[in-house]
Amino acid sequence: MQSLDRAHCEQLDRDDPLAFARDRFHLPEGVVYLDGNSLGALPKATAAHVDQVIRRQWGDDLITGWNTHGWVDLPKRLGAKLAPLIGASEDEVAVCDSTSLNVFKLLSAALSLRPKRKIILSDIGNFPTDLYMAQGLAQLLGRDHRLELVRPEQVLDRIHDDVAIVMLTDVDYRTGRRHDMAAINARARDVGALTLWDLAHSAGAMPVELDRHGCDFAVGCGYKYLNGGPGAPAFLYVARRWLGAAQQPLFGWFGHAQPFDFDTAYRPRDGIERYLVGTPSVIGMAALQCGLETFDGIDLGQLRAKSLALGDLMIRLVAQECGGTGLGLASPADGRQRGSQVSYGHNHGYPIMQALIARRVIGDFRAPDLLRFGFTPLYLRYQDIWDAVAVLKTVLAQEEWRRPEFNRRAAVT
Amino acid sequence: MQSLDRAHCEQLDRDDPLAFARDRFHLPEGVVYLDGNSLGALPKATAAHVDQVIRRQWGDDLITGWNTHGWVDLPKRLGAKLAPLIGASEDEVAVCDSTSLNVFKLLSAALSLRPKRKIILSDIGNFPTDLYMAQGLAQLLGRDHRLELVRPEQVLDRIHDDVAIVMLTDVDYRTGRRHDMAAINARARDVGALTLWDLAHSAGAMPVELDRHGCDFAVGCGYKYLNGGPGAPAFLYVARRWLGAAQQPLFGWFGHAQPFDFDTAYRPRDGIERYLVGTPSVIGMAALQCGLETFDGIDLGQLRAKSLALGDLMIRLVAQECGGTGLGLASPADGRQRGSQVSYGHNHGYPIMQALIARRVIGDFRAPDLLRFGFTPLYLRYQDIWDAVAVLKTVLAQEEWRRPEFNRRAAVT
Repeated sequence: MQSLDRAHCEQLDRDDPLAFARDRFHLPEGVVYLDGNSLGALPKATAAHVDQVIRRQWGDDLITGWNTHGWVDLPKRLGAKLAPLIGASEDEVAVCDSTSLNVFKLLSAALSLRPKRKIILSDIGNFPTDLYMAQGLAQLLGRDHRLELVRPEQVLDRIHDDVAIVMLTDVDYRTGRRHDMAAINARARDVGALTLWDLAHSAGAMPVELDRHGCDFAVGCGYKYLNGGPGAPAFLYVARRWLGAAQQPLFGWFGHAQPFDFDTAYRPRDGIERYLVGTPSVIGMAALQCGLETFDGIDLGQLRAKSLALGDLMIRLVAQECGGTGLGLASPADGRQRGSQVSYGHNHGYPIMQALIARRVIGDFRAPDLLRFGFTPLYLRYQDIWDAVAVLKTVLAQEEWRRPEFNRRAAVT
Repeated sequence: MQSLDRAHCEQLDRDDPLAFARDRFHLPEGVVYLDGNSLGALPKATAAHVDQVIRRQWGDDLITGWNTHGWVDLPKRLGAKLAPLIGASEDEVAVCDSTSLNVFKLLSAALSLRPKRKIILSDIGNFPTDLYMAQGLAQLLGRDHRLELVRPEQVLDRIHDDVAIVMLTDVDYRTGRRHDMAAINARARDVGALTLWDLAHSAGAMPVELDRHGCDFAVGCGYKYLNGGPGAPAFLYVARRWLGAAQQPLFGWFGHAQPFDFDTAYRPRDGIERYLVGTPSVIGMAALQCGLETFDGIDLGQLRAKSLALGDLMIRLVAQECGGTGLGLASPADGRQRGSQVSYGHNHGYPIMQALIARRVIGDFRAPDLLRFGFTPLYLRYQDIWDAVAVLKTVLAQEEWRRPEFNRRAAVT
């Protein structure tokens, strides 16, 4: 195979049909940001819009903003805006709370639909907070419910008629490996189990087809590929067939049929809004709205094609530039089985990542040994991948990671 | 009693030791804002601080902000900042999620401490979302737990040894009537019941003494008297004696002892942070921080004194100016039994409030017939009360509330 150089990458950028989207973001000079799968970059529109919401809507219009600026409808309006990114209908999605809390709501709803089944099935690669929420719910219920964990490749075979719900993250947060959503849904449907998909590393990174694949429930994160800002509100999806049938136990006034009647008895709303709980974060939603608008006019097929091309390029460049340095590809080489990231194992993964960050190539580290590089197609260039690999090559060749300052653990790694 | 006039009110403002605090807020010209108990006014510092967090912390520093800007500690840092306002120690308070969700967490924790008791006791005047969360929890548990509601004045007598937890809002959201926190805690302690206090209409409006009164648990709201902005994060309090003993069931990664170990099994943190769930809203917390800073250097005794003086003035002026107009005082006339609001019943309460708002006197309406006026001592003047009552007098005398546009219900009332 022909050796690649930076000029080749620059040519790919000139040919990139999504190159225009980079201008929608504020990106610090000299940084190669490969951590949009942990916290998306700042859209240029966000600060001004949030400022407007704070100064004009809240500051000038005070309490009347709930009506005059439609704050009260934000969870549903942003859900409708998000729906096309995940292959859902507008009435199946709401933006609210955190991913963790949304997992709790939807697991509870699913268990209420399968009262005789006790097993929540997941895999050991699922993101821990999803597993924790399942453990907390099972313990609270105290009726023999349990979370059963298998290896990712064992999931399909383990789906039997004792399983109430299969809870999986579509794209593994460490390796980027994708589950076969269609096959798992089909198998679950055959045995009467339900499915709950966590789209934290999917939504905004590639097209997702929740409706077409027959998913039952889904959750996802607003602050990764959706660019909603640190701790942005999350989202949830309930397939239309369950909207009326299922109920969740976090009865809050924003999920009440008539919240401003101030009844003492709870009656859920009809649609997706029964999954709302407390008063929604208007300022957080304002920022997320700008994140969602970075997808305006974006072709999701092109988004996926670029995401895979960036990953393929990274894999090829690391092989070309960093051979024999102890990096082991931890992600599927076949793009069809991979999300929008590439991870490498290395015995010194933690300090290597710190050394990269010191040189302004920002990825992240995931225990036990993974260097994780995420690709956000809206703002990453092919030349950025070249530059990142060049820095990685230097860090490894010069063993920069041996410096003491790169071997101290920070609170968030 | 001598008749009061506007000049008298202006003199009260000149003598007000808290008058300086009004300058900490952006208040729209010509508005008398008597709804800070529903949504606090915008602190002048908020927009610039949030802009800084968005542009500099998120925009420039990206994922590294979790460490470099201490985002990861915001729930605890803001909790510590809030603690003195509610008579708590710094390690007993965290800022997180919504009031509703925090009620769920603390009710669950309390029930786990009293496993043989099935009754959650509350009153029919409690804010509905608290009641809903209790109903949802009881239904989820399915083990004969139930929410029992009595009239507010019956609470004390109903606390027996079958009650697991007494859940009350300190200040009634409709009438402003206060419960006797010390007496109820004492009675609960005598029979082995626990207490959960909702401080939505107390925190920031008056001193609260959670520790001194022996409260077990408390929650409260960030967007009312704490001026955190629409949908601001809420707070929760756990008395130190329960910090290690009690557990809540919403097991999220921010409540894990070692979140970045990514264990598959949940282990709670030691302190108040075990009540955290998902990733906290950094932008929402940034706004709330500015709200909390409006209390810097404020004497809470003076705050309470002014709050009561404003309420007493309102009651006296309404009696003087609006006699015979059908307004019935729905709040305790005795300030010691009242929070920081005064409410009036009127057969045409809804359109009267709309007419007031059209004339830029902003209070709110609460079903079935209440006009609600809240007093935020930090930014309200005595002359504002005069002006509000003058407008109320006009609206009633001219029957402005009969206009059709004031009789259409909006989404949020």
